[in-house]
Amino acid sequence: MEKYCFGVDVGGTTIKLGLFTVEGELLEKWEIPTRTENHSEAVLPDVAGAVLGKMKEKGIEKEQVTGVGFGVPGPVTAEGIIVMNANLGWRDKHVAKELEELTGLPCKGGNDVKTAGLGELWKGGAGSYKDAVFITLGTGVAAAIIVDGKVILGSKGAAGEVGHIKVDKEIEEACGCGGAGCVEQFASAPGIVRMAKKLLAQSDKPSLLREGEVTAKSVFDAVKAGDEIAKEVAERFGHYLGYSLAAAAAVVDPEAFIIGGGVSKAGEILIEYVQKYYKKYVWPGCRDKKFVLAKLGNDAGIYGAASYVKM
Amino acid sequence: MEKYCFGVDVGGTTIKLGLFTVEGELLEKWEIPTRTENHSEAVLPDVAGAVLGKMKEKGIEKEQVTGVGFGVPGPVTAEGIIVMNANLGWRDKHVAKELEELTGLPCKGGNDVKTAGLGELWKGGAGSYKDAVFITLGTGVAAAIIVDGKVILGSKGAAGEVGHIKVDKEIEEACGCGGAGCVEQFASAPGIVRMAKKLLAQSDKPSLLREGEVTAKSVFDAVKAGDEIAKEVAERFGHYLGYSLAAAAAVVDPEAFIIGGGVSKAGEILIEYVQKYYKKYVWPGCRDKKFVLAKLGNDAGIYGAASYVKM
Repeated sequence: MEKYCFGVDVGGTTIKLGLFTVEGELLEKWEIPTRTENHSEAVLPDVAGAVLGKMKEKGIEKEQVTGVGFGVPGPVTAEGIIVMNANLGWRDKHVAKELEELTGLPCKGGNDVKTAGLGELWKGGAGSYKDAVFITLGTGVAAAIIVDGKVILGSKGAAGEVGHIKVDKEIEEACGCGGAGCVEQFASAPGIVRMAKKLLAQSDKPSLLREGEVTAKSVFDAVKAGDEIAKEVAERFGHYLGYSLAAAAAVVDPEAFIIGGGVSKAGEILIEYVQKYYKKYVWPGCRDKKFVLAKLGNDAGIYGAASYVKM
Repeated sequence: MEKYCFGVDVGGTTIKLGLFTVEGELLEKWEIPTRTENHSEAVLPDVAGAVLGKMKEKGIEKEQVTGVGFGVPGPVTAEGIIVMNANLGWRDKHVAKELEELTGLPCKGGNDVKTAGLGELWKGGAGSYKDAVFITLGTGVAAAIIVDGKVILGSKGAAGEVGHIKVDKEIEEACGCGGAGCVEQFASAPGIVRMAKKLLAQSDKPSLLREGEVTAKSVFDAVKAGDEIAKEVAERFGHYLGYSLAAAAAVVDPEAFIIGGGVSKAGEILIEYVQKYYKKYVWPGCRDKKFVLAKLGNDAGIYGAASYVKM
């Protein structure tokens, strides 16, 4: 009898789902919208409906499914309780238990970034390393800290909140966390856009960025084309991210940094800028770490989610 | 038949030794000088002589000794090889193997700060926490990072090199590591003295520190007496150390920070200054961490060393 498992990656706008064999082969993936009205009350029933619907469609029986793994934004305890998430309007929500009741299947999960880190560890670029930092650059900046082959949780599920290492004590704009000067304000997609717009406003220099919408992608495309303002943005991005990864290296001494998230689609050029400043700031004994791009892209979350229940 | 083990803490000037029961009761402790001439060639034979001499003195047979644990400065691999230590003049030295040959006893060890962290975990103030950062403020600043009840090594034994997190990009003086602006330059005993001397030279304010030798202890004693210059030194100390511990919290999310080393003898007042800035810089979700002083003092190293071989 063939065995299957599901991986579910709950994001702020879409929920990604994957049907896997227990060996980790992705058979099918699809998305449904995240309905956030009324404290996202529809989200878990929608996930359950999608899973049960797919089983019916494929003629898969309950005893053939080892479980449903999930990744959700925000700190998640070892018991699968999401402590707090502002976007979904959830607080102390026992996601694992509720989803088990809705599906009748074993459910297990964790924080979305840690889950994506697990995915990269299982089937992506992180698997070759026992000690690594998987960092995602997207709407925010967050990390999965891999120690001795495992993603660590920390005492309250907050290990890897490296996006909130302070890197600039002068900045006035507040970060979403309530502080100011966090690396997330410079190395996330919105952070890169904000820096670019500021530099464009401060100078009269011609720039490719003056045409069309400014995005993290358009900034790095302009860097590749030699654009001066875009290069200045990339320097600042590299400076702040390199600095904070140097601090992380002093704490956990990873073998490699694996960079994922939407911003990482800029490619290898991004690594050049980060590594330049990383080497400047890091303790000499940690200078020669590998910097690699994540391999699974947007599928890292569903792979990692499936890995919770694959056995 | 009673069983024993030894714990050995190799420092730059003295070697501390302890005779323990396998349950971890310290029966006797003593010190011998560290003879560093000729790449410290006498150090391991001296340790072996001290251990074998104590066994003879007490009438302890070889089969009664479960082993000799050791802590040595510098990065140490899982196999007990010290990668490099400038003070002792050692490089790629297989301490465990050499000490086994000299004593005929099982030998196992690690980096001195990680070893002291193990000691605090086993018999001191860290034992109540599964996730903690044990930080020593002495000649340098270093940490043992405790994750899920274990001191982590990192990929090259360099986890916990938090003393080299960069906290001041303006400073010109170089750190021992070759970089500049490391927290060690402000929060170590020599760093505190350097800051105090600089402030004394820059102002004409009366200060208790103008009489007698300036030490980390005299600075914090003067703080307690309300001395203005000493208080300014303590603010800077707290600012830099608090900032770097906030960065460490964003990586590993510990339950507590345990502060040891010579500087920690200043007592609870030190924690006030560190915590003030820690709370300022840390991600809000990590604000309420415990800050406690280490309990074993200079004995943490021999306890931790004994813990390697206690079984």
